[in-house]
Amino acid sequence: MKIAVDAAGGDHYPVNPILGAIKALGEKDDLEIILVGPEKVIQSELEKHDYPADRLLVHDAPQIIGMEESPAQAVKNKPQSSITVGLGMHAKGHAEAFISAGNTGALLAASTLILGRLEAVYRPTIATIYPTLSGFRLMVDVGANLDAKPEMLHQFAKMGCIYARNVMGIANPRVGLLNVGEEEEKGTEDLKKTHKLLKDIDSFIGNVEGRDILNGKADVFVCDGYVGNVLLKFGESIPEVLEKLVYKVIKEQNISQEQAGLVGKVLKQAFEPFDYQKVGGIPFLGVNGVSLVGHGGSTPTAMSNMILNAVKIVEAKVNDKIVASLNKPLNVE
Amino acid sequence: MKIAVDAAGGDHYPVNPILGAIKALGEKDDLEIILVGPEKVIQSELEKHDYPADRLLVHDAPQIIGMEESPAQAVKNKPQSSITVGLGMHAKGHAEAFISAGNTGALLAASTLILGRLEAVYRPTIATIYPTLSGFRLMVDVGANLDAKPEMLHQFAKMGCIYARNVMGIANPRVGLLNVGEEEEKGTEDLKKTHKLLKDIDSFIGNVEGRDILNGKADVFVCDGYVGNVLLKFGESIPEVLEKLVYKVIKEQNISQEQAGLVGKVLKQAFEPFDYQKVGGIPFLGVNGVSLVGHGGSTPTAMSNMILNAVKIVEAKVNDKIVASLNKPLNVE
Repeated sequence: MKIAVDAAGGDHYPVNPILGAIKALGEKDDLEIILVGPEKVIQSELEKHDYPADRLLVHDAPQIIGMEESPAQAVKNKPQSSITVGLGMHAKGHAEAFISAGNTGALLAASTLILGRLEAVYRPTIATIYPTLSGFRLMVDVGANLDAKPEMLHQFAKMGCIYARNVMGIANPRVGLLNVGEEEEKGTEDLKKTHKLLKDIDSFIGNVEGRDILNGKADVFVCDGYVGNVLLKFGESIPEVLEKLVYKVIKEQNISQEQAGLVGKVLKQAFEPFDYQKVGGIPFLGVNGVSLVGHGGSTPTAMSNMILNAVKIVEAKVNDKIVASLNKPLNVE
Repeated sequence: MKIAVDAAGGDHYPVNPILGAIKALGEKDDLEIILVGPEKVIQSELEKHDYPADRLLVHDAPQIIGMEESPAQAVKNKPQSSITVGLGMHAKGHAEAFISAGNTGALLAASTLILGRLEAVYRPTIATIYPTLSGFRLMVDVGANLDAKPEMLHQFAKMGCIYARNVMGIANPRVGLLNVGEEEEKGTEDLKKTHKLLKDIDSFIGNVEGRDILNGKADVFVCDGYVGNVLLKFGESIPEVLEKLVYKVIKEQNISQEQAGLVGKVLKQAFEPFDYQKVGGIPFLGVNGVSLVGHGGSTPTAMSNMILNAVKIVEAKVNDKIVASLNKPLNVE
């Protein structure tokens, strides 16, 4: 099992990708990792660490795509970037997956372009792992398809189910269509049509509402990429905003340092189940390969978990299951 | 100034609407209130209280629209409901506003039908008052127009600005278009077109993202009703979910009752600025009248604040300002 790792992606490259790779190798004996990025930079960092040299290789990719670069431009103008080269190696079979903590948009664009779509897939999608009272659950789409058509959302739901079952270990993933009301007749024409299509999924629980997300009423929340992207970023802002609100009270009410420490500790523990480091990256579903993107700030632990998650996806043959589950559409655009 | 109040709406009628009306009358000497609902029920509750009988009238409306009834059906089949009768009185000039804690959908449908649209308005919209680190801010639309076109969103933004300035006291309301990225070229074709249209608003700050909402980056967040409705209900679920998370930690970590009490107190105070009772109801903007809907669980204080807010909207001549601000569209559907 060979996994290609973007050593030039994220806010802390090459250090965190390298430390994450070494950590993952320590946890899995039959794993090989190829670090993709500027060779000299990687080698000079590698020299500082102990690692199994026979299982940790370096592949040169001198160009770097920045976190804020325009995805389409970056992919087009930087054919020697770690993302383009790494995905190219994966496409040619030199690695079984590619993972990156880099520019999500560029990674999506390059994955779609270089890996292509799985047979029968209308559009690849980004699913995110969303924290709920039931633990991490899946939300799809979160930005790849801003005005997804019903047929696409139907496929996203099926792909999400397969991912939830085989990778996240949720036996019978409840699929919920994010809508403005529970009743079947609620929503836009597209949402009503999507509702009808989703009925062929046994575990479809119908429409769910905004209030059902954090409560974990579904395991796979289906929505278009506009709603999903806004919710993803909204959710990420909650802990920080809460911290500011609590800090304001602590300051205004002259609460002692000791008591403030207790409050902070409780809040920190309350959010601990949602530590993004455990997530293992978020997948692009529907591409003809395994491509995961992680948080820009990914720590070595987060990188390692992302690598091990990629292994799990490959071993579970998620893509074969997706192809088998989708009826080949008559007109793939 | 006469305000009609739905005495048969919300979870606690007729008690809370009646107590709210009496409270509002106590705060404003030149105010008259007409309680609309089943006369006998209202009278028998009124007998329990002291109130200025010359300023608190009752108008019979024997039918009641339940909180879960289908709006269109309810409005059609219950011409003698408090909502229909109350809005009819307002339309005929017997009251200068109508407020209700009842079925939001029915109130929107009846307001549009009975009051009609303001000149030049494509579609009436529901704006909600959203809690942020900067205090309450406006989000529009939150469910009346699920797939609002750019021209509509443009009007919602202008109406929202007028409401924010004249009712919420925000001098120069920053308008933000909720999108998937800050750059002008982000989003669907409709979002890009909306962005262009919004440029004629001086205080337009461009696209904002999901993470900018709770941080209060804009004063008027503009989005379609699908996104807005999901965000509205998502936001409402946060305090309860947080409470469950914190409770779990307190239980698992054997935190003392005294310490748990402190944590609870701090959290409660942190959310206090967002007490919905202070909001004063959420407005239907663009209808030819003043119609406000409140939380189903509205307390007497919340009802009273809603009544006083209606007075403020009437006195500020919000609708005249809306008409003056909108260019008359050539083709109102």
